[in-house]
Amino acid sequence: MAEQKLPTRAEDFSEWYNQLVLKAELADYAPVRGCMIVRPYGWALWENIQQALDRRFKATGHVNAAFPMLIPKSFIEKEKSHVEGFSPELAVVTIGGGEKLAEPLVIRPTSETIIGHAYAKWIQSYRDLPLLINLWNSVVRWELRTKLFLRTLEFYWQEGHTAHATFEEAEFETRQMLDIYTDFAVNEAAVPVIPGRKTAGERFAGADQTYSIEAMMGDGKALQAGTSHNLGQNFAKAFEIRYLDKQGQLQHCWTTSWGLSTRFIGAIIMVHGDDQGLILPPRLAPFQVVIVPIFKNDEEKGPVMDLARKIRADLVASDIRVKLDERDGLTPGFRFNDWEMRGVPLRMEVGPKDVAKGSVVLARRDRPGREGKTFVTLDGLPATVSKALVEIQAALLARATQFRDSKTHHPTDFAEFRTCVESGFALCFWCGSEACEARAKEQTKATIRCIPFATEPANGACIVCGQPAAEKALFGKAY
Amino acid sequence: MAEQKLPTRAEDFSEWYNQLVLKAELADYAPVRGCMIVRPYGWALWENIQQALDRRFKATGHVNAAFPMLIPKSFIEKEKSHVEGFSPELAVVTIGGGEKLAEPLVIRPTSETIIGHAYAKWIQSYRDLPLLINLWNSVVRWELRTKLFLRTLEFYWQEGHTAHATFEEAEFETRQMLDIYTDFAVNEAAVPVIPGRKTAGERFAGADQTYSIEAMMGDGKALQAGTSHNLGQNFAKAFEIRYLDKQGQLQHCWTTSWGLSTRFIGAIIMVHGDDQGLILPPRLAPFQVVIVPIFKNDEEKGPVMDLARKIRADLVASDIRVKLDERDGLTPGFRFNDWEMRGVPLRMEVGPKDVAKGSVVLARRDRPGREGKTFVTLDGLPATVSKALVEIQAALLARATQFRDSKTHHPTDFAEFRTCVESGFALCFWCGSEACEARAKEQTKATIRCIPFATEPANGACIVCGQPAAEKALFGKAY
Repeated sequence: MAEQKLPTRAEDFSEWYNQLVLKAELADYAPVRGCMIVRPYGWALWENIQQALDRRFKATGHVNAAFPMLIPKSFIEKEKSHVEGFSPELAVVTIGGGEKLAEPLVIRPTSETIIGHAYAKWIQSYRDLPLLINLWNSVVRWELRTKLFLRTLEFYWQEGHTAHATFEEAEFETRQMLDIYTDFAVNEAAVPVIPGRKTAGERFAGADQTYSIEAMMGDGKALQAGTSHNLGQNFAKAFEIRYLDKQGQLQHCWTTSWGLSTRFIGAIIMVHGDDQGLILPPRLAPFQVVIVPIFKNDEEKGPVMDLARKIRADLVASDIRVKLDERDGLTPGFRFNDWEMRGVPLRMEVGPKDVAKGSVVLARRDRPGREGKTFVTLDGLPATVSKALVEIQAALLARATQFRDSKTHHPTDFAEFRTCVESGFALCFWCGSEACEARAKEQTKATIRCIPFATEPANGACIVCGQPAAEKALFGKAY
Repeated sequence: MAEQKLPTRAEDFSEWYNQLVLKAELADYAPVRGCMIVRPYGWALWENIQQALDRRFKATGHVNAAFPMLIPKSFIEKEKSHVEGFSPELAVVTIGGGEKLAEPLVIRPTSETIIGHAYAKWIQSYRDLPLLINLWNSVVRWELRTKLFLRTLEFYWQEGHTAHATFEEAEFETRQMLDIYTDFAVNEAAVPVIPGRKTAGERFAGADQTYSIEAMMGDGKALQAGTSHNLGQNFAKAFEIRYLDKQGQLQHCWTTSWGLSTRFIGAIIMVHGDDQGLILPPRLAPFQVVIVPIFKNDEEKGPVMDLARKIRADLVASDIRVKLDERDGLTPGFRFNDWEMRGVPLRMEVGPKDVAKGSVVLARRDRPGREGKTFVTLDGLPATVSKALVEIQAALLARATQFRDSKTHHPTDFAEFRTCVESGFALCFWCGSEACEARAKEQTKATIRCIPFATEPANGACIVCGQPAAEKALFGKAY
């Protein structure tokens, strides 16, 4: 139950976020530093995210499996860039069953290596390709600065791992999965994202190419919300993943991996939330509608509860996720604030007058106050509710897109650039050199989030060095 | 692809099991001793088990959440019996991010302790009760003798953890969840189970009472297939889980926990499988029907594949899980064996004659050879298939029940007892003493699997000591 107010986002965005996560009962701190308990309300949101993604993975021919969390430490060391990237972050098991282990084991920070080991065994010929497997699990990375959902020692995610006969197929897969993430973000989470290519310095440890979707948070900062990697033949060579082609030649496979994590919940909070709390997109909300019964005494209570229960049954029958607030001894005002904190998209108020008139009040979470309130009749109520949910979903996407666009600038000199990235994104020419990328970061703390696919044919001067540039990069300060 | 034959169950039941798991591609050995990779076909089966259970959990008011896998070692030591039970089996993380940890962490062997820590914080008053949370995750126990699905270092399961205001409510919950496991086993997995109470020596470490469901495998041995524990106030006292009651008194809660794991997949294999491989109950099978197209040349292939694809679409539209075997260059005989190994309940053969006659062949996996084959017309095919699946489901349950009953004996002296438990169960009087329980085990290796709820009012002589006994116990050799 959420009684106290949040700090406003303008006052302290970071503290607004921390308190919202706790007060909306999405997650809690665990006894181990940097770990997180995902509470039932937060996990229900994650389950809806899982379903929306899993449906898309299966529709494109992927299957799920489970790989062990314990990996021999030597595995991590087999791929050169991979070990450099992950060694500093490992949790190491040295004792099992009361005895010191001969070889230490690590808790997976990601599963490319153990996948490589298995694929080398399973894949023999071109008939076994493509192999398209996804895992839903958690991984552990020993992060020093943590924040609930955004960066935790253990986090929940899916990791897809595929093997292909050719580079082209692997590249197609890598881009296809990024498209799926984009579609999910935009159409399920109402989070407008910018898909693009990462620079060499921002690639996954062991990838030839990394693509990402980048979203703008309510404070103008960027959040990387999903990544897809073309691993080339790096892991195939490190683990000897080979196949006999149609000509009987032994070839190394081409592999990919791609992941989206509980971090995405952080994106949803920071894109849609307001000073009253969370606002959830209807398509992912655990409860799309909350019914708040209002009565002063037992005489009023009976008919109000009867009507509320009947409405609940009707909405459930129409596949609407509905919660009837049956808690005793709480004022309507308290309940309204509580459900606003939790971001339920639509509130329905049912009182004695409504029983008499055959109507109810609907209040939209995305439009606080009188503006978002309407009286609707009981006739065709499920259809009315469904329509309102569709409208809210669209309104959230429109608002987030408008916000992001208003804070995405196109600076033409470095002074202007410096100002833009203080409060939003800068989309501007970059010559492609690591030196310019590093200089921008050093002087402004902004990094290249991605090189968006969809920028106009580009010829201009690099924002940092002024030399000719053939593409535009998206700069921003990142979470 | 499964080309070689299995050993028969009569020859070597254990080796039959091991090879079946690998050849049906349910699971594979991992690089770390005792760990398991659950392959896509095995995981699809587990996903169906998850859905069947999750539906039942949610219908009884439970919600899902996620707790961290890492637990401070000191937590395990807070409950006396718990530490004795689990200490020898722990995997211990001593290094994180390259540094030795001040306090070692254990990978959860089960989550009672970290749940206790959180519940103590979340529960304040009687209004917060009952708290009904379930977790889907994996746990690690350092087992010495392992076998795929039956006993692995890491295994997948659900663990329910609930807190209540009274002993009676906790006991009701404990029994309710055992009922849910029984209902799931019988009606989804076609595994007839015997629910009952565990003896003191077989209880969960920290429980006041443990209940279990016990199933008979194809070799007459017993498998504990799910457990439900009334934890009394043991964990509530160890972790100070307290609530203010309606009178304003501070009380300790009463807690329960209950779990069912990927071990259940082992039960399905060993209850239903035959010498040709796996037989899956239709309600849980990843593919309920496999369509095998049969043709000699490209001229035949076109119309056969057209019909096969049309049938697939019709079955999918009727919510039947169907696989069309489109692999190239394999003989029908090879395909038949392959799908028999994988236990698909119903095979549909589509050949050129079928196209001409408007019919197909259906072959039941549970009735090998001609006996299980029928020609059916295309008219109303989805209904025909649905009906066949219902019949197969019922036939599997009937067969397993008949087998179990035929091998459950009611010995009246110890010599007879000794013979019975060589090949099955003995349901017989037991005086309740640990000495008799131990003596039976010492002399026959049979243990008390449970004290079934549903035995007739009992007055007789203990099978071991001959003294008066007031209840019957189910003895068997256990996995």
